[in-house]
Amino acid sequence: MLARRLIERKRDGGRIDPGEWRALITAYTAGQVPDHQMAALLMAVYIRGLATEEIAALTTAMLHSGAVLDLAHLPGPKIDKHSTGGVGDKVSLVLAPLMASAGVIVPMISGRGLGHTGGTVDKLEAIPGFRTDLPLAQARAQLEQIGCVMLSQSAEIAPADRRIYALRDATATVESLPLIAASIMSKKLAEGLSGLVLDVKQGSGAFIPDVARGIELVECMIGLGRAHGVPVVALMTAMDQPLGRACGNALETEEAIHALTGDGPADLMALTMGLGTEMLLMAGLAATAAEARARLEDALASGAAARKFQEVIEAQGGNPGVVDDPAMLPQAAECELFMAPRSGVVVQIEPRAIGQGVVALGGGRTNADDVIDPSVGFVIVAKAGDWVDGGEPLATIFARDRAGVNEGRAVLRRAIIVGDEAPPPLPLITHRVTEAGVERYAG
Amino acid sequence: MLARRLIERKRDGGRIDPGEWRALITAYTAGQVPDHQMAALLMAVYIRGLATEEIAALTTAMLHSGAVLDLAHLPGPKIDKHSTGGVGDKVSLVLAPLMASAGVIVPMISGRGLGHTGGTVDKLEAIPGFRTDLPLAQARAQLEQIGCVMLSQSAEIAPADRRIYALRDATATVESLPLIAASIMSKKLAEGLSGLVLDVKQGSGAFIPDVARGIELVECMIGLGRAHGVPVVALMTAMDQPLGRACGNALETEEAIHALTGDGPADLMALTMGLGTEMLLMAGLAATAAEARARLEDALASGAAARKFQEVIEAQGGNPGVVDDPAMLPQAAECELFMAPRSGVVVQIEPRAIGQGVVALGGGRTNADDVIDPSVGFVIVAKAGDWVDGGEPLATIFARDRAGVNEGRAVLRRAIIVGDEAPPPLPLITHRVTEAGVERYAG
Repeated sequence: MLARRLIERKRDGGRIDPGEWRALITAYTAGQVPDHQMAALLMAVYIRGLATEEIAALTTAMLHSGAVLDLAHLPGPKIDKHSTGGVGDKVSLVLAPLMASAGVIVPMISGRGLGHTGGTVDKLEAIPGFRTDLPLAQARAQLEQIGCVMLSQSAEIAPADRRIYALRDATATVESLPLIAASIMSKKLAEGLSGLVLDVKQGSGAFIPDVARGIELVECMIGLGRAHGVPVVALMTAMDQPLGRACGNALETEEAIHALTGDGPADLMALTMGLGTEMLLMAGLAATAAEARARLEDALASGAAARKFQEVIEAQGGNPGVVDDPAMLPQAAECELFMAPRSGVVVQIEPRAIGQGVVALGGGRTNADDVIDPSVGFVIVAKAGDWVDGGEPLATIFARDRAGVNEGRAVLRRAIIVGDEAPPPLPLITHRVTEAGVERYAG
Repeated sequence: MLARRLIERKRDGGRIDPGEWRALITAYTAGQVPDHQMAALLMAVYIRGLATEEIAALTTAMLHSGAVLDLAHLPGPKIDKHSTGGVGDKVSLVLAPLMASAGVIVPMISGRGLGHTGGTVDKLEAIPGFRTDLPLAQARAQLEQIGCVMLSQSAEIAPADRRIYALRDATATVESLPLIAASIMSKKLAEGLSGLVLDVKQGSGAFIPDVARGIELVECMIGLGRAHGVPVVALMTAMDQPLGRACGNALETEEAIHALTGDGPADLMALTMGLGTEMLLMAGLAATAAEARARLEDALASGAAARKFQEVIEAQGGNPGVVDDPAMLPQAAECELFMAPRSGVVVQIEPRAIGQGVVALGGGRTNADDVIDPSVGFVIVAKAGDWVDGGEPLATIFARDRAGVNEGRAVLRRAIIVGDEAPPPLPLITHRVTEAGVERYAG
């Protein structure tokens, strides 16, 4: 009866009180509210929206639907990064060990890929033996010992969010700013953080392509963080082409390993440094951006960051040898170069088409329970704005079989446009958003 | 995948094509689309609406989700009446046998009560032994033999509508004109009708209180009927107070039995005659309203209508003796008079409060699987606008026990308002709506 009354009210554009959100989410978590009622409510929320206090109440209710990582006993700054998701985005794999090697405690809980964007958990699981489903007690012990843990969202953490997210995926209610904000923050607040840095993507490959709506989302999340005493800073970053060169799970993990010694593609390194700088500043481990950058460069150059990744891999059951020998990662059976169809300027490398191409090759999911092949994908060496000669290699296709190679070629033909003139690509980082407001990013 | 794509389109205010509606309803009926996806779609439809062609496609898809009563072999007019539901509305119990005794074939499929309005099936089942769940083959044979059958919606008829209706009830998406129209018409078209008369209630106790919206619903249903070659005529009728005197299943059945010999309350008789006149005209069994009325009065006075009800009861397993001796119906353990609290004019007899009062006494349902007590309810002798003396009996409460009597008294105290001045009650029948348009009802 409660659920029906609340659905009715939201359907008509009314507000649901904090106590009602709590009661609803508690009942839903306990299996007392069926999915079809929650689905109807989610659609009403999608169309009618949520007031600020409703988003806060929903977030808190979902946060308390499960266990919370209690890190109060751990001295030191506990900071995580969250990205709204992009194609070729392997920043988390570089950033988590890098920051831990620089003294930040990083309790990172990530998702699996769904649709055109990949997921950090899938990339980590490309490492033979790597487990992301550690019990929370083990995760806490690992944080104490090596300062970094990289988990998937277990049934323990925010189970209401987990179920609601699956429902949103099935009912076309994913792209709702209030629901996105509440979902992210309920999980991140369950990590026991002292600060959070957001990477909010914009451009054609982003979940929320429009920068103004992205900033709206950030402001909502800053408010949610404030209510729980967790400062939130966001960078608005480009997703109008894949980040780095590799797209596909094992390929991205390999690229991340190179980046951990400073040897990654320029855009991947720049974004990692930008986000890492924010984390170090937030942690109080650097006084200025320049000082932060210097520390991070040091951690890359000295091998400390790469060693930290080896520690994480070893602690989580994986083979740390992959850091020295990435060829230990799963290898695709077939690979083939893809050449520029003509001479000209690279007008566009359409990230959604590339991301969907990885799914088509078997490296991503259409449904949450699809099994993926970590070896397949693309390595695209060209970037938008580059001049290329006809017949010059633009990319390599990695596939399970010849049919996959053919499919991959068709994908790249559609996704990579070579023409006579190209609009300038988006700057990699455009804005920085803090409690104080929005500023143009200065670097 | 299909379902999610259609939900997304409707969410954004787009249209779903006829072929897509068909595929969706077929998949839903086959259990291939889960309830949570249908629930999200229903909420999107509730808020965004449906275009005329979408309502037609949904109706046709639900109609063909199950069996259809094929009456093509039966010569003669096959006409049913449908009411949008009111409190004290026992017209169907009078009208179906009355019309059959006058030569119309009446294949009537009715619902059970849910919420504040009662259901014809519950009233029929107050008759000991009466079965409404006949197989369609038996229903056809009965129509052939006695010209009337009174059924509940079985799993055979429009199963998609049945499941969707239950889902709408749980998800606060019942009060949507397109969904109401499609639901009613999918069931009625499955009856193999040659014509349909609608009783669309207006006023505080109606499902759609507003007359303009009620006419909108009728026009939608006229369009759906036309698309299937079934003429539809509607009367817009008052539901600002209970119809007749009895509210409660067995009490209403008893009142209907009296009405079958012409001995019912004036409003019940007038509405029955009004609707019956439309049915006879539609059937071509009378040339004018006056001629139709005369035939119907004849059928009541001669006992033909009452005898037809006995035939129906007997054919459907009930005890036809109740028509001669209504005391054979279930009797409440307790009854008590309810007196006017003061002298004055009856300002209002609030139908929703009365209907909910019957539910509170155990005579109606809050959930679809509640078991009901047919004996309880109210007989209210006063009508809005009547002058009453303080202490004069206004009603009788029928309950299971003393606690029920007390509850019933509290209900009537709230529902029956005696004051100094009363606005005029709604005329019983205000408009007649046909393919040609809307006209003021002339009687």
